[in-house]
Amino acid sequence: MTAEIIAIGSELLTPFFQDTNSLYLTEKLNELGVDVAFKTVVGDHRDHLTAAARIALGRAEILIFMGGLGPTEDDLTRECVAAALGRAVHRDPELITQLYTRFAGLRRKMPENNERQADVVDGAEVLPNALGTAPGQWIEHEHEGARRYILLLPGPPHEIKPMFDEQCVPRLRKRLPRRFIATRVLKIAMMGESDVDHRAAPIYRRFLDVQTTILAGAGDIQLRFSARGESLQAAQARVNELSGLLEDEFEDHVYSTQGESLEQIVGYYLQMRGANIAVAESCTGGLLGERITRVSGSSRYFVGGAIVYDNEMKTLFANVPPMLIAQYGAVSKQVAEALAVGIRDECRATIGVGITGVAGPTGGTEEKPVGLVYIAVADGKRTEVVERRVPGDRDRIRWWATQQALDLVRRMLM
Amino acid sequence: MTAEIIAIGSELLTPFFQDTNSLYLTEKLNELGVDVAFKTVVGDHRDHLTAAARIALGRAEILIFMGGLGPTEDDLTRECVAAALGRAVHRDPELITQLYTRFAGLRRKMPENNERQADVVDGAEVLPNALGTAPGQWIEHEHEGARRYILLLPGPPHEIKPMFDEQCVPRLRKRLPRRFIATRVLKIAMMGESDVDHRAAPIYRRFLDVQTTILAGAGDIQLRFSARGESLQAAQARVNELSGLLEDEFEDHVYSTQGESLEQIVGYYLQMRGANIAVAESCTGGLLGERITRVSGSSRYFVGGAIVYDNEMKTLFANVPPMLIAQYGAVSKQVAEALAVGIRDECRATIGVGITGVAGPTGGTEEKPVGLVYIAVADGKRTEVVERRVPGDRDRIRWWATQQALDLVRRMLM
Repeated sequence: MTAEIIAIGSELLTPFFQDTNSLYLTEKLNELGVDVAFKTVVGDHRDHLTAAARIALGRAEILIFMGGLGPTEDDLTRECVAAALGRAVHRDPELITQLYTRFAGLRRKMPENNERQADVVDGAEVLPNALGTAPGQWIEHEHEGARRYILLLPGPPHEIKPMFDEQCVPRLRKRLPRRFIATRVLKIAMMGESDVDHRAAPIYRRFLDVQTTILAGAGDIQLRFSARGESLQAAQARVNELSGLLEDEFEDHVYSTQGESLEQIVGYYLQMRGANIAVAESCTGGLLGERITRVSGSSRYFVGGAIVYDNEMKTLFANVPPMLIAQYGAVSKQVAEALAVGIRDECRATIGVGITGVAGPTGGTEEKPVGLVYIAVADGKRTEVVERRVPGDRDRIRWWATQQALDLVRRMLM
Repeated sequence: MTAEIIAIGSELLTPFFQDTNSLYLTEKLNELGVDVAFKTVVGDHRDHLTAAARIALGRAEILIFMGGLGPTEDDLTRECVAAALGRAVHRDPELITQLYTRFAGLRRKMPENNERQADVVDGAEVLPNALGTAPGQWIEHEHEGARRYILLLPGPPHEIKPMFDEQCVPRLRKRLPRRFIATRVLKIAMMGESDVDHRAAPIYRRFLDVQTTILAGAGDIQLRFSARGESLQAAQARVNELSGLLEDEFEDHVYSTQGESLEQIVGYYLQMRGANIAVAESCTGGLLGERITRVSGSSRYFVGGAIVYDNEMKTLFANVPPMLIAQYGAVSKQVAEALAVGIRDECRATIGVGITGVAGPTGGTEEKPVGLVYIAVADGKRTEVVERRVPGDRDRIRWWATQQALDLVRRMLM
């Protein structure tokens, strides 16, 4: 079973906006055993939209139209889809009443063109929209002897998601052949994509019935597995078997097996140990603290720290001796260590982290080139430091440094 | 003149990957006077891709195919586009030599299937790829009496961008009717979208020849103008006239007229005044420091500061009296002020910023609900504080707080 997702709106054909709903819908469709075969973006243009609907009708079984259901003249989805299906549109009196009631509730007068939102394709089921004025529509249609499911859904993400989950998924599940799909994700820190693939491929290639996808970020690799089976248990068993083999292969490089972020995992470990953490950041300028505090409840284990951008701040907040900076330079193993030890002492934390480096693009020298970073973690007994030359731009270098810091903390707590 | 952008790759039909090249290409095409009428995503599937190429041929004048030019069996763009055009493919001996030379330079043996990358559609011009092994192709084709420009380009962003800019834009410019397009962007901080639109619409609606687009983020609105004219001066004059009227309307809410970010503008002002800045962040956890230091060269005016997540850190690093926290609570006007004044003193900076709030989703109370934030800025003469209840999730609340902080600093420096 295949689907085509059609996003409607001239703004989606400018350099400024991008459809993101389709990623969400694809995930949900895949769970139903449906593959997305095509995605189309088309403007608010009668001929273009009608033709796109005709094309989709000929090449996919589930057609999802997103957007173009509003009250303005530009909102053409209803009439163009109807035209492509050879059906008419009628104005639904019950929907008109609902629209007027809704506006009355907001104590506003409804502009007359809003009545367009009560237009329904002949034979369609109306999908109520609790979060907006534009209802969706569910249409079943015979096309050249084959069944088509056609969904008209609103464009705003906070409207389309609940409408799809609550009203479309159950309808599709009832009509599609029953499929069981199991998924799993392994996350690996601080290994390169080609390294991971080189070691993982001989293993996942043996699982022809499991689909493996590798997603690579800076210092972060995700291995995603998905399998279909005759029962959920059978599918899950295959996914778990592959996942288990790869966990053995990558051992402590694997930081997460249930979808958790690295920040969350570090938080779990800290709480498990009854420990807390403080940071002293130079080139990352606050990014490590920001990442740790993305996790709600991080106040249980994150005390805070210092952004020691200026050298005097390294001394003021983390007690780094000025002599040390003068002797080795601010970007050095010694200063990273002193930052980790110093901020730990100052904040009386269990663990201290120090980061210093050259994020670029300017400020590099032959001896201390752009991308050189030192990351240190101290727990009072030992201090570990990593020196690395990170390729890429300022953003990537800074991200990578915080990723390395979180992974060092994780390993120290393991 | 209209274009269709076709992204090829089965991974672009999963929940994990999204085409982003098309936004870049759209911007460049718009500058040439070309509108993008359709965007299509299709998998590595022979029939699907050939049919999509045929459809595009019938509905757009410029066809841009991205991806599917690699060496594997899945890379089908060359042969499928050729089939849609009714042309053959030949293996170019010169390209084969280049491929072998490239691999020899890397001291690697070239796998034989790599020769596929030397396949060229009959009549196509080869576009050399300095940054990868897959060359692009430029094809001019007559379709039902009309000229089509067909571009085959590699998928990786760092390969497609220079190839399009350096090899395709000049070719298109030579062949397309000469257009002059002027653009401009006004950025406005700390106003709501509907507020901005309510005041801006009566003005921009009078400029029928200027296209106005409003982009709204948290505490950040961009008004983008674009006009075509018989000369660049004429187009620029219209855009500037509208922009000038809106600058008058919004006065000091406008922080940028040349595309600069708020972080950059704050950096300019600080340098102009010979001033520097220090921050004390509670609920934002380092995000303000991180934003300020996104700007390369920010070490000239950013000294650093403290992440005062834990209450003791507020005292340790920013000298906030524990009594003050006990009396008013950590999330209070008084503590925000004390943070700004304290971090300024500690760091001996010209300007100090203090942020405290409830980022949620947990930790809110009736008196101090989720979203309540206090932002204070001190320059030694005065201290300004803003109290605001920010709607939205943790990310949005934290972003908004740093946006407000940067805007307060900007206003204090103006």
